[in-house]
Amino acid sequence: MSLDTIYEPIQEDLVEVESRLRVLAGVSYPRLARLLGQSLGGGGKRIRPALVLLSGRFYRYDLECLLPMALAVEVLHTATLVHDDAIDHSPLRRGSPTINQVWGEDKAILLGDYLLAQAEELVSQTQNLRVVSLFARAIMTLASGELAQAFSAFNLELSREQYFARIAAKTASLITLATESGAILSRAPERVVTALKDYGYNLGIAFQIVDDILDFIGDEAEMGKPTASDLSEGTLTLPAMMVLARYPSQNPIRRLFSHEGDKEQNIRLALELVISSGVLEECYQLAQDYSARACTSLEPLPVSPARKSLEELAQYVVARKK
Amino acid sequence: MSLDTIYEPIQEDLVEVESRLRVLAGVSYPRLARLLGQSLGGGGKRIRPALVLLSGRFYRYDLECLLPMALAVEVLHTATLVHDDAIDHSPLRRGSPTINQVWGEDKAILLGDYLLAQAEELVSQTQNLRVVSLFARAIMTLASGELAQAFSAFNLELSREQYFARIAAKTASLITLATESGAILSRAPERVVTALKDYGYNLGIAFQIVDDILDFIGDEAEMGKPTASDLSEGTLTLPAMMVLARYPSQNPIRRLFSHEGDKEQNIRLALELVISSGVLEECYQLAQDYSARACTSLEPLPVSPARKSLEELAQYVVARKK
Repeated sequence: MSLDTIYEPIQEDLVEVESRLRVLAGVSYPRLARLLGQSLGGGGKRIRPALVLLSGRFYRYDLECLLPMALAVEVLHTATLVHDDAIDHSPLRRGSPTINQVWGEDKAILLGDYLLAQAEELVSQTQNLRVVSLFARAIMTLASGELAQAFSAFNLELSREQYFARIAAKTASLITLATESGAILSRAPERVVTALKDYGYNLGIAFQIVDDILDFIGDEAEMGKPTASDLSEGTLTLPAMMVLARYPSQNPIRRLFSHEGDKEQNIRLALELVISSGVLEECYQLAQDYSARACTSLEPLPVSPARKSLEELAQYVVARKK
Repeated sequence: MSLDTIYEPIQEDLVEVESRLRVLAGVSYPRLARLLGQSLGGGGKRIRPALVLLSGRFYRYDLECLLPMALAVEVLHTATLVHDDAIDHSPLRRGSPTINQVWGEDKAILLGDYLLAQAEELVSQTQNLRVVSLFARAIMTLASGELAQAFSAFNLELSREQYFARIAAKTASLITLATESGAILSRAPERVVTALKDYGYNLGIAFQIVDDILDFIGDEAEMGKPTASDLSEGTLTLPAMMVLARYPSQNPIRRLFSHEGDKEQNIRLALELVISSGVLEECYQLAQDYSARACTSLEPLPVSPARKSLEELAQYVVARKK
């Protein structure tokens, strides 16, 4: 199942999203225009704007407010990537050099701030105060989730409950924002808003579990970032937690997080252990459960091509290889 | 003239601003609560919230929306300080250790993002879409002004026009936002909105020129940051530009920006040259002109204690010593 097929019911409007992203990058200050072109153009999957548009397809499909919202979630997502890369000192994103790598961390911080404000400006174009408020609260949740992750770097104590709370905050919050706002802006009844919000939450959790799996098995060239980058930054994810629980002593992750022995060797051993232990299959099963829950959440919605696309997207996020 | 006297017509409401800032810092996640307490509590002059309240004093003084707006501009101002300190690797702010100094740059970036979103959430409480949009555009202007400054670090080519464009973007934008939104939220007629917007612009320019002067003559202990910090970071400000124009060759600023010779010695010589040259008096004169223009902008407004306070504030910003 390709994204092109899934995006079929909103294909033309996604072309308009791309074209408006280019317009946003066309500011008069040349250096800013270049930074915006580099960060907004970078070939993302555009899942978040697609979710706004698909979620808006069930009642009044009003592009006047759905398009600015679709742009807003993509611009916000880009802002968080630019800041994340500055925080992690990442050299690559989707196989291309990051803003911090090319222009320095100071420019990355300021560009991220500009993008956050640009996203907010786009949300104000929806003329919907409920959505403006949702948007602001989603960023607060996201930032506080990222803070919790930063404060627990190289800390082995993380309960499964804390892991799920963290990925709900740092990933599901923005995906839920996309689906919930699409529903609100199309004037869907409240039970449908809730259904699409639940769908977004479950999809977001499935998405992040798969991201955490791919960090262990993804090909570096395909992922556009180094393998086991989470462990290398001291971030404990579900596969690492499971392997720690299974092999509590003599575990290379324990040595890595205590800064004992050679870092690269500990990472290599940890990678081998995660892959040979079979925990990744368990993680996949969990991701599939959330994906199935996402589909179940859609039951109150009328059967339609948009609903079919949302169901397929839930399957896509667990089947994807990057 | 003390700020307490100037703030007299809105004294009680500023107490409420302080109290609500403490409530905002009281989040359930203890580490975030600590960061918020440290950054929001830090004894600022609260000029921006005071400007919202004073500007709202001429028509319908509706605290239901003016208070959230007053909080929003202070929280936004704090967000920009937190990010600025991370960018400049500053160890001190108002005499206390910065967030980046105590907790690291990654936490400072994320806290700034949280504060930006918190500010936006507060603006949404005004229920006024015009103000929501103004707010977003002010941050875009501010971030692009800061980017222009970052890109021209250690660059001697800066026209006076570019200097004024930069300080308009990085300082006057937020002060104008405070006065203009105060007017809009109090349902002032458009000519009054324009008058208070012009006042904010002129006040903001005067404020920044004085900040740039104080960076040369302020006592380190009193300013809470090292003297000549702008030059040290490669930022050319009005006094430095004037001294460069007056002594085009053999200038220590030229040597500093070309990384020739000892950095500390160049800074010391530049400081002496700026002070002995008499350019600071010229800069003060310019700041006073803008301050006078700010007062003239207020002419369409009814004579009242709030107008008197705004006039006094325009005098205060040029007379202040920190």
